[in-house]
Amino acid sequence: MTFLEKLKKRVCNKNSYLCVGLDPIWEKIPPHLPRTQDGLLEFLLMIVNETQAYAAVFKPNFAYFEILGTPGIEVLQELIRQIPSDIPVLGDAKRGDVGHSAKMYAKSIFETFECDAVTVSPYQGEDSINPFFEYDGRGVFVLCLTSNPSATDFQLPEMYLRVAKKVKELNSRGNAGLVVGATRPEKIESIRKISGKMPFLIPGIGIQGGDLEKTLIAAEDGSNIPYLINASRSIIYSNSTIKYAQKAGDAAKSLRDQINLCRSNL
Amino acid sequence: MTFLEKLKKRVCNKNSYLCVGLDPIWEKIPPHLPRTQDGLLEFLLMIVNETQAYAAVFKPNFAYFEILGTPGIEVLQELIRQIPSDIPVLGDAKRGDVGHSAKMYAKSIFETFECDAVTVSPYQGEDSINPFFEYDGRGVFVLCLTSNPSATDFQLPEMYLRVAKKVKELNSRGNAGLVVGATRPEKIESIRKISGKMPFLIPGIGIQGGDLEKTLIAAEDGSNIPYLINASRSIIYSNSTIKYAQKAGDAAKSLRDQINLCRSNL
Repeated sequence: MTFLEKLKKRVCNKNSYLCVGLDPIWEKIPPHLPRTQDGLLEFLLMIVNETQAYAAVFKPNFAYFEILGTPGIEVLQELIRQIPSDIPVLGDAKRGDVGHSAKMYAKSIFETFECDAVTVSPYQGEDSINPFFEYDGRGVFVLCLTSNPSATDFQLPEMYLRVAKKVKELNSRGNAGLVVGATRPEKIESIRKISGKMPFLIPGIGIQGGDLEKTLIAAEDGSNIPYLINASRSIIYSNSTIKYAQKAGDAAKSLRDQINLCRSNL
Repeated sequence: MTFLEKLKKRVCNKNSYLCVGLDPIWEKIPPHLPRTQDGLLEFLLMIVNETQAYAAVFKPNFAYFEILGTPGIEVLQELIRQIPSDIPVLGDAKRGDVGHSAKMYAKSIFETFECDAVTVSPYQGEDSINPFFEYDGRGVFVLCLTSNPSATDFQLPEMYLRVAKKVKELNSRGNAGLVVGATRPEKIESIRKISGKMPFLIPGIGIQGGDLEKTLIAAEDGSNIPYLINASRSIIYSNSTIKYAQKAGDAAKSLRDQINLCRSNL
């Protein structure tokens, strides 16, 4: 089953467009959990367990695991192995290199880490993203217009449109997506016009203040999967007592329902 | 000692502007070495040992270690630990993320992996590169104009100049550098005009066909360290017999001397 098939099935079964980001930070993990590999894995698996009824996708961000060195990488690999196989795992790695190195990164994310999908950086152009696209059963979300203030430095005024155009051109296998932040909903429509149907991974709702309704309207493409709405810290750190996982589940349910309510009003 | 002080001392002592890239690939490692962690580490340490007389810097590319999962990460950490402490280690990781994730990547490269310097991707702007610059004792080489054919997709015609300008602005700590490929020497001069004095990490000489003399002329800035010329596979895989390390040393000496000859003719 390809990433997109798995994703469609999941979105349909769970009636959810929610992507739950898994960004473990020692300082934010409930204090009763031990600061060990086992404690970290327990935290993540409990979050997965309680949020999976509402999550279409899980998205571990590699930065938070790499910082711990090999023990962190071990936890990341074990986490991915233990996420139920019907739930797509999006490796948020934002890799970008060229030629042989790009092939190595693609193989690493898709084979070594067994992710169903990945985020990649477009700066080095086609050479750097094609090795990912060549895994036609996997999903590749290319950074287009990110949700941070400094997106103005290089992505605006028009680089994000060039990226959308190039990704559209390279999408012969139908496994491309774009990362499009919710903080500039007025730009999302112009990206959609260029991209045609492909899923957008949308961060920036919640803490960063993106407007959910405007974002969903602008990102709509008439397909089954126009977007995945990402939330990380607002879900996984919604509570730091022994009820943290249950509360994370509540937060995931609440955001999933909010997305669905918005969709039904469109 | 900061990265730049360490680098200056090294360049001066060894009379070398050569950066040796360490990109281990199973298929290319001499067949007599075992395909194990120990075999990989032996290969890399022998290369380091025989090329260190001619190398200013060693540059491990993270892609080639990550692909092996935790055993690869262990080898990378052990390799960095065993490189003599007077030789700067440039972590070629091309990371790029925002906010808290960018801080995590910076801490990972500089603290967990103990690199003296790093390569980063600029696509997400200031937010994504500032957390690296904040480590003022470390070097930060930002991708500007890369050596691959697809650099035309987004970097040209003028994005690379915007990147050079932004990096110049952000370089209040004096620890910035730029990655500038040798394959378009005519562009290097325009980058230097914007950047002022800062080291360029220059790939693309050798296999990719960059012109060494034109590159050195264009990249000159009148400082002690205008550039580091990178070579990876042409050095470390110059021979696959039991004499591989000695031959790598010969290849490193040859390129170092070629660079110095060019410099003396300028």
